[in-house]
Amino acid sequence: MNAVNSLDDLTASMTSLGAAARRAATAMAAAPTAAKNQALLALARRLREAGPALQKANAQDVDAAIAAGLEAPMVDRLRLTAKVLATVAEGCEQIAAMPDPVGEITGVKRRPSGISVGQMRVPLGVFGMIYESRPNVTIEAASLAIKSGNACILRGGSEAIHSNLALSVLVGDALAEAGLPREAVQLIGTTDRAAVGLLITMPEFVDVIIPRGGKGLIERISREAKVPVIKHLDGNCHCYVDAEVDIEQALVIVDNAKTQKYSPCNATESLLVHAAQARAFLPRIAEIFVAKGVEMRGCGRTQALVPAAVPASEADWGTEYLAPVISIKVVDSLDEAMAHIGRYGSHHTDAILTTNHPNAMRFLREVDSASVMVNASTRFADGFEYGLGAEIGISTDKFHARGPVGLDGLTSMKWVVLGQGEIRT
Amino acid sequence: MNAVNSLDDLTASMTSLGAAARRAATAMAAAPTAAKNQALLALARRLREAGPALQKANAQDVDAAIAAGLEAPMVDRLRLTAKVLATVAEGCEQIAAMPDPVGEITGVKRRPSGISVGQMRVPLGVFGMIYESRPNVTIEAASLAIKSGNACILRGGSEAIHSNLALSVLVGDALAEAGLPREAVQLIGTTDRAAVGLLITMPEFVDVIIPRGGKGLIERISREAKVPVIKHLDGNCHCYVDAEVDIEQALVIVDNAKTQKYSPCNATESLLVHAAQARAFLPRIAEIFVAKGVEMRGCGRTQALVPAAVPASEADWGTEYLAPVISIKVVDSLDEAMAHIGRYGSHHTDAILTTNHPNAMRFLREVDSASVMVNASTRFADGFEYGLGAEIGISTDKFHARGPVGLDGLTSMKWVVLGQGEIRT
Repeated sequence: MNAVNSLDDLTASMTSLGAAARRAATAMAAAPTAAKNQALLALARRLREAGPALQKANAQDVDAAIAAGLEAPMVDRLRLTAKVLATVAEGCEQIAAMPDPVGEITGVKRRPSGISVGQMRVPLGVFGMIYESRPNVTIEAASLAIKSGNACILRGGSEAIHSNLALSVLVGDALAEAGLPREAVQLIGTTDRAAVGLLITMPEFVDVIIPRGGKGLIERISREAKVPVIKHLDGNCHCYVDAEVDIEQALVIVDNAKTQKYSPCNATESLLVHAAQARAFLPRIAEIFVAKGVEMRGCGRTQALVPAAVPASEADWGTEYLAPVISIKVVDSLDEAMAHIGRYGSHHTDAILTTNHPNAMRFLREVDSASVMVNASTRFADGFEYGLGAEIGISTDKFHARGPVGLDGLTSMKWVVLGQGEIRT
Repeated sequence: MNAVNSLDDLTASMTSLGAAARRAATAMAAAPTAAKNQALLALARRLREAGPALQKANAQDVDAAIAAGLEAPMVDRLRLTAKVLATVAEGCEQIAAMPDPVGEITGVKRRPSGISVGQMRVPLGVFGMIYESRPNVTIEAASLAIKSGNACILRGGSEAIHSNLALSVLVGDALAEAGLPREAVQLIGTTDRAAVGLLITMPEFVDVIIPRGGKGLIERISREAKVPVIKHLDGNCHCYVDAEVDIEQALVIVDNAKTQKYSPCNATESLLVHAAQARAFLPRIAEIFVAKGVEMRGCGRTQALVPAAVPASEADWGTEYLAPVISIKVVDSLDEAMAHIGRYGSHHTDAILTTNHPNAMRFLREVDSASVMVNASTRFADGFEYGLGAEIGISTDKFHARGPVGLDGLTSMKWVVLGQGEIRT
């Protein structure tokens, strides 16, 4: 088969996948809450009972990864151990226990014309998800799709293809058990990269794309997509220690925000300290950072107070380290802190540590980030911590959904008008 | 000057406009409600007092339009008469009287970790608006930008350029009078078409584009934009007369939905009638349509009952006429009606006329349109009628904003976290 025919075949297969997803989305939008919950509970049961077929498929991926010389942590991320399966099964049960977002009617008001106008929450339709590595994302995406009444088309990483295919069979069986269409959750069965290019340019079949992976992948998909993309770019998060502050509390929070885990996007990468507290705060937090092996890159005033700090370059202020490194700057006012965050930040998550109420309120209102916090660790910016039950991703955009995206982010609000024969005059 | 230099100049000027808008947006996001309302009331006053400068500018556009041989209705749309100015001034006052959407905090809940999590409504930032013809849109866009705490960059039609420039001076003066930045509302001063191409590809300065105009313009902008677009495409709206119905009420509604005005996007273009009511309903509505000169294009069963109806082609079911023409089809069930709307409709506005409660609820839930109605005229799908105060546009998309877009559609929700020293464990 030559390349042209092969692309034709792929296009035909993606078109057929898309059309099936669109049909399934119509059925899912009208599906009773009980059927959706039944599918989720059936999926949880099937994951716990997951037998030899799943283990065999997973072993294929793990063996291939080992043979390809992947590092041990990468190989471990592929493994569907009983513990991993129990965790994702529990996730399905938690989502089943949540209220159904679909059909919620809000804000109904009588208008002078006599009509009542409100809004009803409805599924977006079909979402496409592109992700790498861990096969449990397949189940997280599937369970959020089912509960939110959407259909989805999943494209996992090639390194997990056998596991993902086996998991998608479990999802299909669970949907069928609840009388819902198997095509509500479809996995792209080929690892051909051209399939991604097709998936992101089918606005007739796909309403939104959610990529999860490296920044390069997300930027490329955003650039080439012909449908909206819920995207997550940098998490260059700040903690600002204000002039009036509970120093002991601030030490605990900044330590946690930076060092509790270095790799998450909501870890703090930059510390701003008001000049009035620099002398009291910086040497003490520096002691903690030195003990934990966190490299400090500071402005001149920071270096004067913290001998262990190396000079920060201009590039440091804009850098998401995802590592035991932090940039530190002394500022002279709340305004300077907010201006710095506005200029160098990534609009992800930023926190003020203060006992001053007006300053707390100004920070909350004026800092233009997806999550703004007072006296709490930036590490809380997370769908589970926010009570969303699960998250399909985190948005660094302002449009549609911002910050952690859960079930509501997979829905939109349509207008409903209830009349008794009213006409426009 | 050669073309390359000219494009360089335009790029420099648009970049400077964009940067100024971004700076102004930061100020507007933090602006007190009182200042924003003061600017709106000052604008209303200045519009009412609008003196010779505005009249002279408007006369230039009107004279040019007459000289160019534009038809009388087109010329009339350009005229800023005292009545038109009074209407837009009143619009500004109405928006001033509305609650400030910015800063609204909703859904704050305590989490098991101890933090309180909620959402705060904030401005989107900078919106770009591209529109044609009527200069009063300049004031509508400016007033919505001011109240919603956004900055905007406006690009009106070349035929209204002198009027728009004069109006933008009034807006700037009103902003300055309230201590707000003039750059919160900027009008692109050139009629060079390349400016639009630049405006829609500056994601660093512009957060969303709202085009208002013909379908061709909107499709082109959506295709070429590098920022989200709130777009309005077809309005192929349906009325479905159910098997159980108050026929007298249905006659009044269908008449109104089709004939009250032919040109709006929310006028009904297609009528579906359940077979059980076809014999009772169709001859009577046909009598009304014939009297008003509305051409009927029907299916075979319609033609059998309505001799005046001509045959509908397949293309008719998908056509937005915006004219005294209606397509008519007899269906055998609610399911058939909803499937027809799903296949041929444009997801804009669709209404069911019924006395059957389960059918009303199914229609509301299952018809995937921006506005779904029970026993009311499709003509109600409008920002003023919905109580939004004014509308910046109507969205036929599902993402972000759907249907009439008012102040809320120019905002998004960020997460706010209120802690007392909590850390992640």
